[in-house]
Amino acid sequence: MNFADRLMEKIDQKQSHVCVGLDPRLNQIPENIKDKAIKNYGKTTEAVAKSFLEFNKGIIDAVAEHTAIVKPQMAFYEQYGYWGVKAFEDTVAYAKDSGLLVISDAKRNDIGSTAKAYADGYLGRPDFWEGETLVNKSDSLTVTPYLGSDGIIPFVDSCQEHDKGIFTLVKTSNPSSGDLQDLVTKADSRIYEEIAKLVVCWGEELIGERGYSSIGAVVGATYPSEARTLREIMVNNYFLVPGYGAQGGSADDVIDCFNDDGYGAVVNSSRGIIFAYQQKRYSNDYKEAAKQAVIEMKEAINNSLAKEDKLAWQ
Amino acid sequence: MNFADRLMEKIDQKQSHVCVGLDPRLNQIPENIKDKAIKNYGKTTEAVAKSFLEFNKGIIDAVAEHTAIVKPQMAFYEQYGYWGVKAFEDTVAYAKDSGLLVISDAKRNDIGSTAKAYADGYLGRPDFWEGETLVNKSDSLTVTPYLGSDGIIPFVDSCQEHDKGIFTLVKTSNPSSGDLQDLVTKADSRIYEEIAKLVVCWGEELIGERGYSSIGAVVGATYPSEARTLREIMVNNYFLVPGYGAQGGSADDVIDCFNDDGYGAVVNSSRGIIFAYQQKRYSNDYKEAAKQAVIEMKEAINNSLAKEDKLAWQ
Repeated sequence: MNFADRLMEKIDQKQSHVCVGLDPRLNQIPENIKDKAIKNYGKTTEAVAKSFLEFNKGIIDAVAEHTAIVKPQMAFYEQYGYWGVKAFEDTVAYAKDSGLLVISDAKRNDIGSTAKAYADGYLGRPDFWEGETLVNKSDSLTVTPYLGSDGIIPFVDSCQEHDKGIFTLVKTSNPSSGDLQDLVTKADSRIYEEIAKLVVCWGEELIGERGYSSIGAVVGATYPSEARTLREIMVNNYFLVPGYGAQGGSADDVIDCFNDDGYGAVVNSSRGIIFAYQQKRYSNDYKEAAKQAVIEMKEAINNSLAKEDKLAWQ
Repeated sequence: MNFADRLMEKIDQKQSHVCVGLDPRLNQIPENIKDKAIKNYGKTTEAVAKSFLEFNKGIIDAVAEHTAIVKPQMAFYEQYGYWGVKAFEDTVAYAKDSGLLVISDAKRNDIGSTAKAYADGYLGRPDFWEGETLVNKSDSLTVTPYLGSDGIIPFVDSCQEHDKGIFTLVKTSNPSSGDLQDLVTKADSRIYEEIAKLVVCWGEELIGERGYSSIGAVVGATYPSEARTLREIMVNNYFLVPGYGAQGGSADDVIDCFNDDGYGAVVNSSRGIIFAYQQKRYSNDYKEAAKQAVIEMKEAINNSLAKEDKLAWQ
C-alpha cells in the first residue's frame, strides 16, 4: 500500500496526528538505565547504544497507542559511531514490531548516483550478495533539496518501487531558516515556494487512494503564515511539522498545516514528550510522563482542529 | 594547527592538489577480495564491510604518496547499516595512520541543536560517560546550507575548538544543481552567490597563517564559469572540487577554482581512480591502476596550473 495511505490508515486508527521524535540525549536518560548499561558493557559506545535502545523501547511502549508514527533523529545516534547506528536500527525494528510507522530523520542529500546509495539504503534494496536481500525497515526518510531534482529523483523512485515515503525540507522550523529559504526571486516568489512547486512535481505520480502523495514536505510549526501559503501550493502533499512544544509552536499554530479534510500533517514533538519526566507537571517516571505528554498533545491538536471544524473523526 | 594550514602543508609535501574519493561499490570490488570476505563472514553485511576495508586499504597504500587528502563518501557505507559505518570508521583510521587528511563526505545538515550533535560526532566531542572522551578521527566534513546560519554555526564552532574544517555546498557538480542554486534573487544575485557570501562570514574567524580559512566550499568542476565568480567572492576559502573525470570535468576546467598563488582548491576524483583497473588504459591490478590514475591526475592539474603560471612549486 502507498505510504501516504498507510500513514492515514494509522492516523485514523490512533485518532492522532502526533509524531514522536526519538532523539535520545545521554545526559537526559534516566540514571538507572545508564547504570545498568555501564555495569554490563563498561563506559563504552556499546553502553550508550544499549541505554538508548532501552530508553526508546520504554517510550515506544508508552506512546504506541496514541501516535501513528515515530521519528528517530539520526544525528543523536550517529555521533556514537557504529554502535549508535546499531541502536538506531534496533529502535526502528522495535517501533515497527509495535505497529508504528517510522520516519528516519536523516536529511540526506547528494548528487544522483550517490543519492541512489542513500535511497537504496533507507528505502530500497542496496546492491548485495547474490541470492541475499538487504531491507531497511523504516517507512520514510527526510531529505534536503539543495542539489535540485537529480538529487531527489532517486529517493522518489525508491518510494514508488517499495511503497515508501520522503519528506523534503521546504520551510524549516529554526530561527535562521530564512537565510536561504526566504530569499525572494526575480519572479517575486520565495525559495521555499520554488521548492514547494518542485515537491508537487516530484510527488505527482505517487498519489494514493485517499488523495495524498507519498512525497511529503517539512514545514515548521514556527512559521504559520508560511505554512498557509505552502498548504495552498502543496495541496496533495503530506506535511511533517517540526517545531511543536520545545521549539515554540502551539496546537493553534499547526492548524494551517492541515487541509479542510482534517488530514495532511503529522506534527512532531521530541524533547517535549520523551523528556517530559524532567518537567514538574508530569510524572517523574519517564514512560508515564511520555504517555501523559503525548495524550495531552494529541488532544490539544484534535481540539484545535475541532474548533476550526477540521477534525476528521466526529 | 588550523585545518587549512594542515591541508596546505600536506599539499606541499605531496605536491598534489588531488583528493581521492573512497566510494566503494560492491559490484566493482575485485572478486578475490569479496571471495575471501564471504569465506570468512558469509554473505553478510559484515562481509561487505570487510571487503570495503580491504579494498580501501589497498587504494590508500597505492595513492598515499600522491594525494594530500581522501574523501570517503558516507552513503556508500551507510547503506549497509552499522557494519558499513564500522568500515567507514576503520577506513578513516587507516587513512590517518597513513599520514593522510580525511574529509568525511556526509553532507550533514539540521537545525542548531541537532546540527550540534552531528558536529560533535564528526568534528568535536560527543557527550559521553564521565571521565571518557570520544574522538572522531576525520579532519573535516561536508555540510549542506539549506537551513541557514544556525544550522552551520555548530560546525564552525567545532572547527574552531578542535582545528577541524568543513566544506559547505555552494555550487554542486550535478546536472540539476541549478534548480535551486542558480535561481536569481531580486537583488540580481544567484543563490550560490548568496551562500558564498555566508561562507565568507562563517569563515572569517578561522583564517590560518597562510591566509586560508578552515571553512571551505564545495564548487563543482563541471561549472567553470560559476567557479570564477565564486573564487572572487570566497577569496580566502578553500574549495573542494568534485566532478573531475567520471563526471566530465577536466584539468583545465578546474584551474579557475585556484587562486593566483596556486592554492585554494583540492580536486576530487572517486571512480576515475579507485576503479581505474576496469579501464583498458590502466593496469588490471586495482592498486597499480589507482596509482597510475592518481599520478596522471596530479600531473594533469599541475601542468594546467603551470600553463597559467599558477603552479606553487617551481
